[in-house]
Amino acid sequence: MTKSVPAFPEIETKGGIWRFPADQPLRLDSGAEFAPLEMAYQTYGVLNDARSNAILVCHALTGDQHMASTHPVTGKPGWWNRVVGPGLPLDPDRYFIICANVLGGCMGSSGPASINPQTDEVYGLSFPMITIGDMARAQAMLIRALGIDTLFAVVGASMGGMQVLQWAADFPERVFSAVCIGAAPRHSAQNIAFHEVGRQAIMADPDWRGGAYVQAGVRPEKGLAVARMAAHITYLSETALQRKFGRELQSDGLSWGFNADFQVESYLRHQGASFVDRFDANSYLYITRALDYFDLASEHDGVLAKAFQRARDVRFCVLSFSSDWLYATSESRDIVRALNAAGCRASFAEIQTDKGHDAIFLEEPALDSALRGFMASAAERRGLK
Amino acid sequence: MTKSVPAFPEIETKGGIWRFPADQPLRLDSGAEFAPLEMAYQTYGVLNDARSNAILVCHALTGDQHMASTHPVTGKPGWWNRVVGPGLPLDPDRYFIICANVLGGCMGSSGPASINPQTDEVYGLSFPMITIGDMARAQAMLIRALGIDTLFAVVGASMGGMQVLQWAADFPERVFSAVCIGAAPRHSAQNIAFHEVGRQAIMADPDWRGGAYVQAGVRPEKGLAVARMAAHITYLSETALQRKFGRELQSDGLSWGFNADFQVESYLRHQGASFVDRFDANSYLYITRALDYFDLASEHDGVLAKAFQRARDVRFCVLSFSSDWLYATSESRDIVRALNAAGCRASFAEIQTDKGHDAIFLEEPALDSALRGFMASAAERRGLK
Repeated sequence: MTKSVPAFPEIETKGGIWRFPADQPLRLDSGAEFAPLEMAYQTYGVLNDARSNAILVCHALTGDQHMASTHPVTGKPGWWNRVVGPGLPLDPDRYFIICANVLGGCMGSSGPASINPQTDEVYGLSFPMITIGDMARAQAMLIRALGIDTLFAVVGASMGGMQVLQWAADFPERVFSAVCIGAAPRHSAQNIAFHEVGRQAIMADPDWRGGAYVQAGVRPEKGLAVARMAAHITYLSETALQRKFGRELQSDGLSWGFNADFQVESYLRHQGASFVDRFDANSYLYITRALDYFDLASEHDGVLAKAFQRARDVRFCVLSFSSDWLYATSESRDIVRALNAAGCRASFAEIQTDKGHDAIFLEEPALDSALRGFMASAAERRGLK
Repeated sequence: MTKSVPAFPEIETKGGIWRFPADQPLRLDSGAEFAPLEMAYQTYGVLNDARSNAILVCHALTGDQHMASTHPVTGKPGWWNRVVGPGLPLDPDRYFIICANVLGGCMGSSGPASINPQTDEVYGLSFPMITIGDMARAQAMLIRALGIDTLFAVVGASMGGMQVLQWAADFPERVFSAVCIGAAPRHSAQNIAFHEVGRQAIMADPDWRGGAYVQAGVRPEKGLAVARMAAHITYLSETALQRKFGRELQSDGLSWGFNADFQVESYLRHQGASFVDRFDANSYLYITRALDYFDLASEHDGVLAKAFQRARDVRFCVLSFSSDWLYATSESRDIVRALNAAGCRASFAEIQTDKGHDAIFLEEPALDSALRGFMASAAERRGLK
């Protein structure tokens, strides 16, 4: 029996790279200023005359702006074409949907793999350290440049959800509604630990060359693949791993060797190997670091509710997945509690699923309907047709 | 305030390496035969005249025979001197306690770092693939060589617990009682996945040299350290990590770089760095592989209870830790269910702790008292004074 694959027709997308002039630097949380800032983005749909139907989607750690259209490197469908498309919760026939590659990324926005125009060399480790707040600030510059004062919604999952929280905290007057999916208000010790394993794997690879591998014409592929494998385990629930693979073998018997005997080994190796074709190792270092540094409360006297005290007019939707152990439901509840304490309007749902964190990207009708319902209600309030 | 450290006086230990002659090979599950087998062991206490007070303790993945005496490489106290000692649950004044380095290990028993006497070269990857069953069979040869027909008890935690199950399945007539702590009857997909990350990290290190690093005078230290770091995350519960480290920094502020900013990073780096001084990378590959291959039911038509059908006279004690997510309580319950189905006597307790798998090695009075109670009751049945 063949699995029925839902057809996602290619939808029209426009995009490009917004190059800010050198005299419009990005102010960074580290205290440094970064210029010239470049932001790569894609858009779906049309901005209405009132400029009131714009949605910014913030992507996750290894995502990019190719959310609902074919990825130019891998040729694969967009990472959220299950959610963004005609008749789907984020409908380009109704909304103007923007997705930008994050600051520090490697798909066109300024990042460690970009060329520093002052030296004509790749930045590498001379790229400044960044935070989730910096990512949101860079997006805010892009949104302003696109002529949009107020976003109808800012939507994101995982690291994208953290950017959503940062938007609500830093630019509440520019956000009508906010959707935070499978995220956390801070990185836990375990989150940091997994990232540190990945970073050490990359930096242990002699082809990392102290970060200057591009100049040397090599890439730390093995280290980056190991980092991806370690991270990937955290994206799946144990139940999902067991159901998907269990102890199933690749062939009839054990190899009595170190080949990929088990299907789960082969799967992880594939995840590692395919990742290095599309992702830059230094970007991985910088973005994981930004995540580890993320602790929204710490910017507000250690009180998360204070982060949202200016966001009382924002409509929030917080969603979590019951089997997500990377950013567990308890962390989403922390967000909701803080929103409530700050007097914000927040709806919350825990999606029952055994797919783990990865549910963000998988067939999960309960997520779609929660998102659809929230967007429809917010659109009505906003007076969108 | 200084923490009170319990004093563990150095207890007397004897030990050595038992060298089996080449005409007494070890039969391996792979079908191969291995000779000459060498088994390194330590003993504590005195074997009684009836030879009825012998306890075999089986160690975990990275453990060794130096269970209750100073480690000759690290100079640290034995890994279980909280459990083995005068007045402790495993009391050398009462029992003759044996701990042997596992087959495939690197502390004196035959393993990939041993010299192959036929070639006068280090085995490296020419060492045969081994299983948990092979480890138990090698121990059984040693126990016989030491003149012991029947063990009063075989005791082990983690991988040691798997060896205990294997002893009960394969040599039930030579075991009076069996204690299996924090183990599982099979390796799950997630267990295999974590091990595969570790193996890939080791094999990605160019100093691994296809397994022939000893001959080349190098060691894959960076890869092995990454493997240890990844594994170490699974030994601690998220709660323990959060309580121990949270988001505490190493110094006053963020470094805005890739140094170990967070205490949890520094801790993991230390775990990795200190591990490579005492452990052989190929041993890590072989032993993790043996663990991944472990599935006791598969040797018995897929029915775990059948593994224990000859073990009805063995007294079993199964213990798990409530916050252990490496080998969860549900896996211990699977063992107990199978023991019950096979008509074996089994007592079971879940130790309430938030320390995770690592509770095996930590101050955990409930573990000590469960172990003490079971041993005392079994000793009475055995007529031991």
